[in-house]
Amino acid sequence: MNDKLIIFDTTLRDGEQSPGASMTRDEKLRIARQLERMRVDVIEAGFAAASNGDFESVRAIAEAIKESTVCSLARANENDIRRAGEAIRPAARGRIHTFIATSPIHMEKKLRMSPDEVVAQAVKAIGWAKEYTDDIEFSAEDAGRSEIDFLCRIFEAVINAGATTINVPDTVGYNVPEQFAATIATLIERVPNSDKVVWSVHCHNDLGLAVANSLAAVRAGARQVECTVNGLGERAGNASLEEVVMAVRTRRDVFQCDTGIDTTQIVPASKLVSGVTGFPVQPNKAIVGANAFAHESGIHQDGVLKHRETYEIMRAEDVGWGANKLVLGKHSGRNAFRSRLQELGIEVESEEHLNHAFARFKELADKKHEIFDEDLHALMSDEAITPALEHFRLLSSRFRSETGERPEAEIALAVGGEEIRTCAHGSGPVDAAFKAIESVANSGTDLLLYSVNAITTGTDAQGEVTVRLARDGRVVNGQGADTDIIVASAKAYLNALNKLHSKFERVNPQV
Amino acid sequence: MNDKLIIFDTTLRDGEQSPGASMTRDEKLRIARQLERMRVDVIEAGFAAASNGDFESVRAIAEAIKESTVCSLARANENDIRRAGEAIRPAARGRIHTFIATSPIHMEKKLRMSPDEVVAQAVKAIGWAKEYTDDIEFSAEDAGRSEIDFLCRIFEAVINAGATTINVPDTVGYNVPEQFAATIATLIERVPNSDKVVWSVHCHNDLGLAVANSLAAVRAGARQVECTVNGLGERAGNASLEEVVMAVRTRRDVFQCDTGIDTTQIVPASKLVSGVTGFPVQPNKAIVGANAFAHESGIHQDGVLKHRETYEIMRAEDVGWGANKLVLGKHSGRNAFRSRLQELGIEVESEEHLNHAFARFKELADKKHEIFDEDLHALMSDEAITPALEHFRLLSSRFRSETGERPEAEIALAVGGEEIRTCAHGSGPVDAAFKAIESVANSGTDLLLYSVNAITTGTDAQGEVTVRLARDGRVVNGQGADTDIIVASAKAYLNALNKLHSKFERVNPQV
Repeated sequence: MNDKLIIFDTTLRDGEQSPGASMTRDEKLRIARQLERMRVDVIEAGFAAASNGDFESVRAIAEAIKESTVCSLARANENDIRRAGEAIRPAARGRIHTFIATSPIHMEKKLRMSPDEVVAQAVKAIGWAKEYTDDIEFSAEDAGRSEIDFLCRIFEAVINAGATTINVPDTVGYNVPEQFAATIATLIERVPNSDKVVWSVHCHNDLGLAVANSLAAVRAGARQVECTVNGLGERAGNASLEEVVMAVRTRRDVFQCDTGIDTTQIVPASKLVSGVTGFPVQPNKAIVGANAFAHESGIHQDGVLKHRETYEIMRAEDVGWGANKLVLGKHSGRNAFRSRLQELGIEVESEEHLNHAFARFKELADKKHEIFDEDLHALMSDEAITPALEHFRLLSSRFRSETGERPEAEIALAVGGEEIRTCAHGSGPVDAAFKAIESVANSGTDLLLYSVNAITTGTDAQGEVTVRLARDGRVVNGQGADTDIIVASAKAYLNALNKLHSKFERVNPQV
Repeated sequence: MNDKLIIFDTTLRDGEQSPGASMTRDEKLRIARQLERMRVDVIEAGFAAASNGDFESVRAIAEAIKESTVCSLARANENDIRRAGEAIRPAARGRIHTFIATSPIHMEKKLRMSPDEVVAQAVKAIGWAKEYTDDIEFSAEDAGRSEIDFLCRIFEAVINAGATTINVPDTVGYNVPEQFAATIATLIERVPNSDKVVWSVHCHNDLGLAVANSLAAVRAGARQVECTVNGLGERAGNASLEEVVMAVRTRRDVFQCDTGIDTTQIVPASKLVSGVTGFPVQPNKAIVGANAFAHESGIHQDGVLKHRETYEIMRAEDVGWGANKLVLGKHSGRNAFRSRLQELGIEVESEEHLNHAFARFKELADKKHEIFDEDLHALMSDEAITPALEHFRLLSSRFRSETGERPEAEIALAVGGEEIRTCAHGSGPVDAAFKAIESVANSGTDLLLYSVNAITTGTDAQGEVTVRLARDGRVVNGQGADTDIIVASAKAYLNALNKLHSKFERVNPQV
C-alpha cells in the first residue's frame, strides 16, 4: 500500500494575499465548501489575527466545514495564537499553524532577534497553541535560505514542545528540485524524532519550479504539500494543487503515495476560484486551462484516433472537464431551480432569499435562451451580495453610442437608499457609465484593471466583468454579470465601490 | 567561463499549433522581430510543408531576420525536407529540423514501420537536408517513452549522417525531472561522438513539469532548450522561455551556463504574444504575470523596505517591467509618432501606410487623453490588416440599450466593396451587433470565446476584444481595439470572419 500524501490548501490564506485577490467572507465560505467537496485534507482558512474580518471568516469556515481540518495561521506570538485558537474552536478538526523566520537575513533584518531568542519564541508559541488543539504545525519562514544546522535545532525543539507537522517553505522561490529534496532528506535524517511528525513543504513559484520542488520533496519523504487552486498566491504564486495532485496520481510508479482528492472536483474548483478572484486561467495552464486537453495538430489528431494512449496520459473527465450542461430555461420552475442549486452546492440561506434569486433567474431566462451551470454560479454570486451591505445600487440605465458622436450614459442609482439620476459622456459607453457613477460617488480611486469574459459560449452569453480599483494602496475587485456588457460593467464598478465603502484593516503574513 | 545554453524558441511553430493561437504571416513576422531583439539563438519559424501559407511565413521570416538562426520543421520525408530547405534559403543562418517517432507505440500504431525502417528513413532525411544546410537538427518524437537502446542506435546513425543537434522531446509531458535527467545523461554517455553535437530538449507541460524537466536536462549536459514565450503550445504548452532563462540566470551557481538572451525584452515579448493570440497571461504567472513582482502582504512589504534582498531574487526591471510610458498625446506630430514606432520596433512599410496610421492615431488622440505604448501596438496591429484582404469592414455603427428594452444595433458594413446597412436586436448590445453582422454574413460559425481586456489603466482606456469563432473544426481568433467596447467587439468579430474567409489548409506536426 502506498503512503498517504496530505493536501493542505492555502488558497484562502496565501492565495487570497495576491494583490487584487481579496475575498469576502461569503466568497471564502463558497470556496471552502468546494475544497471540502474535493476532499482536501487541511484548509488553511486565513490568518485570524490579521483583522476582525479575517477572524470572522476563519470562524465561519470552522463552523461550516465538517470533513476537512480547518487551520488558521498565526505568527509565533501569544496574541496571534490565541486569536487563531478562538477562531478554529468550532471546527470538527482544528489546526494552528505558527511560523517564525529562520534565515540569517530575516532574523537579523526583519525580526531583529538572535537565533537563541528565535528558538525560545518558537517553543513558547507551541505551548500557547497546545491550549487549543493537539494539531500544531510549525513553519520555518524562508527555510530555503536558512542554515541547515539551525533548522535542525529549531525543529528538534518544536517537536519536543508538541508540534505535529513541520513545514519547510521556500518563501522566495529560490530553490531548485534536487537541492530542495536534499534539504528535506537531510532534515528527516538528522532531526531527532523526525518519524513522529509529518514533514510538509510550501513552495513559491518565482522561477516556475514550485510544483517540481514540492514533488522532489515528496520523493525525499515529505508527506504534506501546501498548495493553492490555480497556483494562486503572492507574486508568481504557490505550487498549484491540480498539478501536484495529478502528477502524483499519473506517476504513482515514481511518487509511491496517494492523495485523498476527488479529482473530478478540480475543474469546478478552478472555475470557482477564477470567478471569485477575477484572475483568468490561461488556456495553456496544465490540467485546468481551456486547452489542456484540446488537440489541434493534424498528425496528433490522427495519432489519437489510431490509438488513444498515443498522446493521452490523463483523461479530461478525471479532472472534471465535461460539456456545459444545459440545465434550465425559461419554463423551468422554482423546484427545478432549487434542486439544481443544491446539486451545484450553492446554499440558499432562506426562502426569501430563494424567492428573490428565482425572480432574478426568470429575468435572465427572458433574455437568454439556455441557462448553464456557470450562469447560475454568476447569478448566485451577484445574489450573495446582501442588499443591506450595498451602499451603491444600480436601478436603471440607458446607453447610446454612434459613430462620430460622444457615447452617453444615463444612470439611476440608489445611494444609501436615496435615488439619484446622473448622466455623462465618455470615450466609450463603459467610460461614460463609470464617469456618470463617479459624478455621484467621487471615490478618488484609480481603475487598475478592466476585463470581461463570457460566462458560456454563444452570442447571447452573459458577460462577466471584473473591475479592479485602488485607493490609498488598498485594492479591491468588483464583479458584475449581465447579458448587456455595459450594465455588467456598471454593476462591477458599483460592486468594487461597495467593497471600498466597507471598513477594512489588516496585516498579511508571509510564509 | 560558463557554457553557452542555446535558446531555441518555437512560439511560431509549436506555440502556434495551440487551438485558437493561429497567426497570420504579418503577426508571425512581428513576433520573429521581437525574438531577434531578445537575442533568441534559433527561431523555429514554422513547418514549411504544412501549407503554402506556412511556407510563405517561414520564407518571409528567413528573409527578415539577420541575427538569429531561422529553422523550419520537416517530417523525415523528401517532400517535407525540400520544402523546408527552400523556405529557409534566404536566411543568414538556416536550420532544418527533422523528426520521426521512436517509441514502440508510435512506430507501431502511427507510423506502421519497423525499427529498422525508422532508422533508415531518419538517415535518408539527414542526407536530403544536407543539400540545403549544414545546420541539421534531428528529433526523436516521443523520446520520453522510447527504449533507450533504440534511441542510442538512431542517434548514432543520424550523427554519422551529419546531424549537428540531437533533440530529445518529452512529447506527452509524462516525465519527471530526475528520470528525464538520467535519460539525457545516459544518452550523452552511451552515444558515440555525442561530444560532436549539441544535445537539446523539448518538454511539454501536461503535469506542470516542463521547465523543471528542461532544467534537469541542462544539469545533465543538454545545451539547447526548446521553449516558447508564455509557455504557449499544444495542450498545457511547452517549457516557458522566460522561466528557463531566468532560472538559469538567477541560479548560475547551479546550472553553470549562460544564455545570450537580452532579458529586458522578455516582458515586451510576452505582451506581444499574448496580444496576437488573445491568450491572457494569468496574474500569478512566473516572471511575466502582472503580479509576479507585486507584493501585497504587510509583513512582506515591511521586509522589502527594511532590506531589499529579504524577498527579492530578481529585479522587475531586469525582465523588462517598467512603468507605462506616456509617449504621445493630441498635439504630438507626425515625426514624434514615427520615431516612437521605430523605438518600439514596429515597422511601417511605406509613407502611405504611415500617413494612414497617423490619421488613425489622431482620431484616437481625440477620444483618449494619453496614448501609451500599448495603444500604439494595438493601433498598428489593427493597421497591419491590409484593407485589400478584408472582405468585411465596419463603416459606421449606432447602439442603444435601456433598462426594460431590447438592445439594438445599426451597422453599416463594406462587404467585398459594397456598402450594406443592417440592424438587429439582441440580449445585449454586443449580441445585437453580432446578430446584425450575421444577418449579412450568414457565416454558420460558433462563438467559442469572447473576452475584453483594457489595454492600459484608466476609464478612457481602449478595450481590446478577442472573439474566437469555429466552423467545421477550424478555429480563428479575431481582435479589435477601440475606446468604445461595442465597436471593438464588432471589429473583432469582423476580423475573425475575414480570417475564416481566407483560404487555409494545413497539417500540424507533433514533436
